[in-house]
Amino acid sequence: MSISVAVVDAETPGNVGTIARAMKNFGFEDLLLVDPPELDPDGEAYGFAGHAREDVLPNARKVSFDYLVEHYHTVGTTATTNEDHRRHIRYPFTTPADLAQSLRGVETDTCLVFGRERVGLHNEELERIDEVCAIPASAEYPVLNLGQAATVVLYELRELTVEETQLPDAIERAPEGDIEGLHDQFASFLDALRHEDSRRPKTERLFRRLLGRAHPTTREVSTLRGVFRKAEDGLRYGLPGDREEGE
Amino acid sequence: MSISVAVVDAETPGNVGTIARAMKNFGFEDLLLVDPPELDPDGEAYGFAGHAREDVLPNARKVSFDYLVEHYHTVGTTATTNEDHRRHIRYPFTTPADLAQSLRGVETDTCLVFGRERVGLHNEELERIDEVCAIPASAEYPVLNLGQAATVVLYELRELTVEETQLPDAIERAPEGDIEGLHDQFASFLDALRHEDSRRPKTERLFRRLLGRAHPTTREVSTLRGVFRKAEDGLRYGLPGDREEGE
Repeated sequence: MSISVAVVDAETPGNVGTIARAMKNFGFEDLLLVDPPELDPDGEAYGFAGHAREDVLPNARKVSFDYLVEHYHTVGTTATTNEDHRRHIRYPFTTPADLAQSLRGVETDTCLVFGRERVGLHNEELERIDEVCAIPASAEYPVLNLGQAATVVLYELRELTVEETQLPDAIERAPEGDIEGLHDQFASFLDALRHEDSRRPKTERLFRRLLGRAHPTTREVSTLRGVFRKAEDGLRYGLPGDREEGE
Repeated sequence: MSISVAVVDAETPGNVGTIARAMKNFGFEDLLLVDPPELDPDGEAYGFAGHAREDVLPNARKVSFDYLVEHYHTVGTTATTNEDHRRHIRYPFTTPADLAQSLRGVETDTCLVFGRERVGLHNEELERIDEVCAIPASAEYPVLNLGQAATVVLYELRELTVEETQLPDAIERAPEGDIEGLHDQFASFLDALRHEDSRRPKTERLFRRLLGRAHPTTREVSTLRGVFRKAEDGLRYGLPGDREEGE
């Protein structure tokens, strides 16, 4: 499966650069431009593209709108869907999250089509496009800037395009035995503190709930365990500097 | 609960404008600026802000980093988390989607803190911040532009801040009875077409699967039903223009 990105009739080179950058951030490579503005290598398109100036942007292909319709499963984006089931130009629509879900199981060459600034894709263009996608936003002001809209859609589709993210798979939560060891140490510390017997179970439970929500790392657990052990020893025997020689 | 947005030491007014626009798109109001650049009402900040030039941007407050730490549950964003559990400046981190989930049940004044272009938040700043948030992106190039990173995070948190989106709640799927009516009409059309008896069940099933995946609207169902009815009549009795007078 491949997912291409097309920008139709963009006015500002900066937006093309912004979209190219988001493409590289989220694992997309193929940029198609319909009626693009001049992309000066010293201008805003390259200035806004970050590292995408090295590949996505110089490899962009200039194509016609007809080419998109003929060669791809086209998905057009629009902020304005205020139509109902009696009109089909902008309805039904999908959201970026649902689009990611529905493309997951499909073997197809898809092209995400983003329209010009201000007015987006024209109705005559949307009519020829296979699916309509709208970003849920505030009813008060749902119109995103072109580059920002593309960033959100590409972000949502990243799981189809990014092979490896910069993030580790999961937080390394401490082994359960280590966490229980910290709870034992905390109880022992409360004992050394001569914390009132009647309040001790509540305080221990409170600490258990706090750690339970936080999913502590090995390092967090071992550091806190050391701190409480040191406090316990200090409370029982005095801190090292306070002890008399030979004690 | 309130969620504020802080931008620390931004260099380019355009990025502040971009963030203000995303805030308005996704239902955020309170913008805090630490060491901001000059925001000229005729400059790029206002130029990039869209309708946020009317409220979010002029209402922005200039504050100190200390103010953020003292008054908010702070969430710092960074693209670079390549640390492990032995160092806690950028670890553990959360993703924007998990952050939305974890803030859902909490009554707190939260502030999302975005750092300067190029280097983001400094370690000395991240050390004082409560939670670290990282956007999953391509390992090859995970560094988003400041304005684009903020757009993604605000998009992910929209369900906590947007009261009403511009989109209807759900697609108006046709009532099941209407869809079954279309299947009956399709079968009757195949009959008029003298479609081979042996292939008819397969063709009907194929059509049932196609509609089953597409969740058709009332309008789609009634229009297609009309088309097949007209075709059936035309096949059985000839199209209206072809019939002889009085037939």
